[in-house]
Amino acid sequence: TEVALAPHEASFDRAKLDDLLKRRFFFEPSFAIYGPQTGLYDFGPMGAALKANLVQEWRKHFILEDQMLEVDCSCLTPEPVLKASGHLERFSDWMVKDVKSGDCFRADHLIKNSIEKLLADKKTSADLKSELQEVLARLEGFNDKDMKEVIAKYQFKSPITGNDVSEPVAFNLMFPTQIGPNGEEKAFLRPETAQGIFVNFKRLLEFNQSKLPFAAAQIGLGFRNEISPRQGLIRVREFTMCEIEYFVDPKDKSHPKFKKIARYPLTLFPAFSQSNGQPASEWRIGDAVAQGVVNSEALAYYLVRCQQFLVKVGVDPRRLRFRQHLPNEMAHYAQDCWDAEILTSYGWGECVGNADRACYDLRQHYKATGVKLIAEKPLPTPKSVEVIEAKRNMGIIGSQFKEHAKKIQDALRKLTPEQLIEVETELAANKLYNLKINDEMFPLTDTMITTKKYSKAVHVEEIEPSVIEPSYGIGRIMNAVLEHAFREREGDESRCFLALPPLIAPIKCSVLTITKNPMFESIVGLVEEELKKYEISYKVDETSTSLGKRYARTDEIGIPFGVTIDFESEQKPHTVTLSWINQTEKIDISTEPADATAMRILN
Amino acid sequence: TEVALAPHEASFDRAKLDDLLKRRFFFEPSFAIYGPQTGLYDFGPMGAALKANLVQEWRKHFILEDQMLEVDCSCLTPEPVLKASGHLERFSDWMVKDVKSGDCFRADHLIKNSIEKLLADKKTSADLKSELQEVLARLEGFNDKDMKEVIAKYQFKSPITGNDVSEPVAFNLMFPTQIGPNGEEKAFLRPETAQGIFVNFKRLLEFNQSKLPFAAAQIGLGFRNEISPRQGLIRVREFTMCEIEYFVDPKDKSHPKFKKIARYPLTLFPAFSQSNGQPASEWRIGDAVAQGVVNSEALAYYLVRCQQFLVKVGVDPRRLRFRQHLPNEMAHYAQDCWDAEILTSYGWGECVGNADRACYDLRQHYKATGVKLIAEKPLPTPKSVEVIEAKRNMGIIGSQFKEHAKKIQDALRKLTPEQLIEVETELAANKLYNLKINDEMFPLTDTMITTKKYSKAVHVEEIEPSVIEPSYGIGRIMNAVLEHAFREREGDESRCFLALPPLIAPIKCSVLTITKNPMFESIVGLVEEELKKYEISYKVDETSTSLGKRYARTDEIGIPFGVTIDFESEQKPHTVTLSWINQTEKIDISTEPADATAMRILN
Repeated sequence: TEVALAPHEASFDRAKLDDLLKRRFFFEPSFAIYGPQTGLYDFGPMGAALKANLVQEWRKHFILEDQMLEVDCSCLTPEPVLKASGHLERFSDWMVKDVKSGDCFRADHLIKNSIEKLLADKKTSADLKSELQEVLARLEGFNDKDMKEVIAKYQFKSPITGNDVSEPVAFNLMFPTQIGPNGEEKAFLRPETAQGIFVNFKRLLEFNQSKLPFAAAQIGLGFRNEISPRQGLIRVREFTMCEIEYFVDPKDKSHPKFKKIARYPLTLFPAFSQSNGQPASEWRIGDAVAQGVVNSEALAYYLVRCQQFLVKVGVDPRRLRFRQHLPNEMAHYAQDCWDAEILTSYGWGECVGNADRACYDLRQHYKATGVKLIAEKPLPTPKSVEVIEAKRNMGIIGSQFKEHAKKIQDALRKLTPEQLIEVETELAANKLYNLKINDEMFPLTDTMITTKKYSKAVHVEEIEPSVIEPSYGIGRIMNAVLEHAFREREGDESRCFLALPPLIAPIKCSVLTITKNPMFESIVGLVEEELKKYEISYKVDETSTSLGKRYARTDEIGIPFGVTIDFESEQKPHTVTLSWINQTEKIDISTEPADATAMRILN
Repeated sequence: TEVALAPHEASFDRAKLDDLLKRRFFFEPSFAIYGPQTGLYDFGPMGAALKANLVQEWRKHFILEDQMLEVDCSCLTPEPVLKASGHLERFSDWMVKDVKSGDCFRADHLIKNSIEKLLADKKTSADLKSELQEVLARLEGFNDKDMKEVIAKYQFKSPITGNDVSEPVAFNLMFPTQIGPNGEEKAFLRPETAQGIFVNFKRLLEFNQSKLPFAAAQIGLGFRNEISPRQGLIRVREFTMCEIEYFVDPKDKSHPKFKKIARYPLTLFPAFSQSNGQPASEWRIGDAVAQGVVNSEALAYYLVRCQQFLVKVGVDPRRLRFRQHLPNEMAHYAQDCWDAEILTSYGWGECVGNADRACYDLRQHYKATGVKLIAEKPLPTPKSVEVIEAKRNMGIIGSQFKEHAKKIQDALRKLTPEQLIEVETELAANKLYNLKINDEMFPLTDTMITTKKYSKAVHVEEIEPSVIEPSYGIGRIMNAVLEHAFREREGDESRCFLALPPLIAPIKCSVLTITKNPMFESIVGLVEEELKKYEISYKVDETSTSLGKRYARTDEIGIPFGVTIDFESEQKPHTVTLSWINQTEKIDISTEPADATAMRILN
């Protein structure tokens, strides 16, 4: 129904686009000569250039514009990091298995597809349909028990064999491996780039001269072992993502540039509209913040920047909306979350997540390592506070506990003030404190540890930064951009083309000679030199095919500019024809200020 | 000894550089708050920008300049691909284990270090020293037996504990994982990007309108589970590499641009010089090809392009040489191989490999998949050839062999002409051909398969392209560039700085105000707008620290250009001072053609 409301461009011939993308080698399944690999794609020259341009524009739009701190961290991630972040325990999908064939399905996909089949079936009663529609609406918030019940109640089967399916089991989506020659260290491929930023928070804060707020960003690969990859670039096992972490004082989530964008209009689909069955609608972002629909200025700022970026790289704004997560979709610690959803032939799909994750991530890594991941804010006036400290005698601890001493030292270092008060109480009462590490007990006497309380003047307040996380999936955006740029030529449906913004076009300029003729070679060379000087990608086509056909070939891969060399070009001054969209212009390549021409092509 | 011959800049205070790189967050061990991870590095804002600039310059220097076909392929690689490429069997290092502690060492490293210790020891006799030196010279070509003998003969022990070590065992350096929900598909992280290009050869050839020669390139991550990572960025477990595969007719390895570079001088260290104890020396590349020292024009072209690139990004040409592999270092199929070696504080180290791999890789994937990875060359006149073909009756094969039918079909499709002749002979003799697949036999009758011979006029010759592979390790190059750019200020050794080429400097321009004063804010804003327009990275420092100290801070991270705003800037026309190296210039930011200034900064 949402798709039905969308502009008519949304329906188009996906097969024709797929054919174009395959034929001109934008991308295709990896290792295809070995039998295609699901969920992995190789990008050919056109796809690789398009992707590189998207990423480069992202870097310019976000990192350069807002002076973000870019980092480039490891994909290989040791288990303890992902245990702390919660991925080890919770980064999984519910999976059901065909009890006979062993085929695996994502439980929610199986339910969704089964319901959709029933809804499309004329024999399904109206009562059942409305019941199923209700299930569908609640599906996003289902846990395993809910799904098990639904599968049992409606007797959903394997769509391939018709066999029964198992109960939903959690399947962790991270790819496991081991680091080191002994295989001793369990590790995973990172499922997102964000953790690399969090673990480096302290260094980044220092780099920013200890001041909040600041944004860090990372462009890199993420890996997810999807149960059933599908929909081309939408759900894949290896993908490029661009993530920002904006670290901000939780008590002051204003944004210095908010005023500049407050009147910017966005299509918002707030949680309350979704619950009430109302459609998405246009809001000025300033109003959305004022009315508490969007939780903070900072989050709102990133929504606007997101829209600006997506439209700049070619997403149709009429097929773009920001959908707020429903309360049951959000993690318990999240304050607010808005997905940029883009309408494509696969329906409305999330391409960018924009989440206020509060202080969850930094706190988790602090807990796991004992390294304080906090910022400090100067107090207007110093204040006096009570502090409690442990004094450890590592000599005695060492001689008593030998190989455990290091572990004990680590544990003592991580004791919280509350725990230290407990230590003090127990030592006072029993002259003994039983330190528990995992399942072992270490009795510490007051010769090994003592506590000391005193008051201290503090000049700064410690704050646990909140983090706002915009997270971009480049493959999904690329899919949307390609769909939205796809055109069929009226009256000649066999000739399709891509109307890509020049900014991201894989090749910026074609160089064509009016006929195949060796006398043009030196002029082609001159044009090539100029284009290289300005780092403008180009493609020379001097074949004897007709000029019209050669232009059609360049249209098909979205080359926005063309230089044509004809017999006039031979004469001095050398002139060539520069054409773009529906314009053409004669340029004298020997005298024309090349800068001006280049800037026209590049911007 | 080689290090001793090097210019004096080669010896410097590595600790001071390391301190600078850590303090200004170029890079540091990944996940440091969890206890540092060996062999993995996170790049902070300065390192990430330097790396991105190196990669971008590589793309411009190679891909754009020579119109290479860039691809972007998966890191996750199914086992069969790496079995075909030979990595599964042979991509390993010999490892020895401390028999008591289990510590692992690379056998060749253990031998090298043990020998070097003995050589440095005054008590070692002159005879033993010369014997050991000879072992050292042959070490690169040692197999496991050779190493076992040497370890036993000289009684080399674990350098940590002094315990005995085990015999050398092969340790495969690929990181294993599994793809899919059943863990059914064994896979590895790619140890190099090259295979992604080879498996896409057919598509790339098509893209190039079926013409040889052409070059494809890939920039991406490689992963190697090094036994003992060390030496900073030199030997790591996850790294960025840039690889080219130049596909060329094996009978014609000329290069269209060779003439342009024939007089270019390079420092070459040919195999015969190494064997004869002669030093590296300067050659004109044209002479080296003419004398058969470098195997082909095409390989020579890439050596020159390599030198040009390395020098452009800041490698000192006096600390750069091209070392030819010794016959026993090269794989059996390789035709020639030259490493670009750079002298750093770690000695001469390989940073780029340039290998002529003949047709090995394409042939291996052809054998494994049955997909012909060849090119076609038009023949001057058509010729008649005998061909033999199999005709399969899949209906009968299917009903006879059921679930094996698919496998049989695949195997039949892969039969070579020689095997088909065998089929013909056996069918004629016994009316039966026993097809062997792995260890199973499938008896095929002449109702299932027949062969047909006929002569055909062919207009093209099939050729198996040779491949020349330049392979760049970005981390190693980065390490060399940083070392070669490191300077201590004369008379003030505490103030170090990086003299990086502007092209790759992490930040191109600093923006400083002469004092901290709110009245400068609007001019800073104007300058920022201009810099952003030209995508020039910059850093504003308006703190109240002295201007000299702020400049020192920018020198330290290699910022080549500085804009200073002073009280004159307030007056109209607004002027600022642009300074670089030892020059300064007043610029009127309201009228100065910004293009010209920007071009000066960017080039």
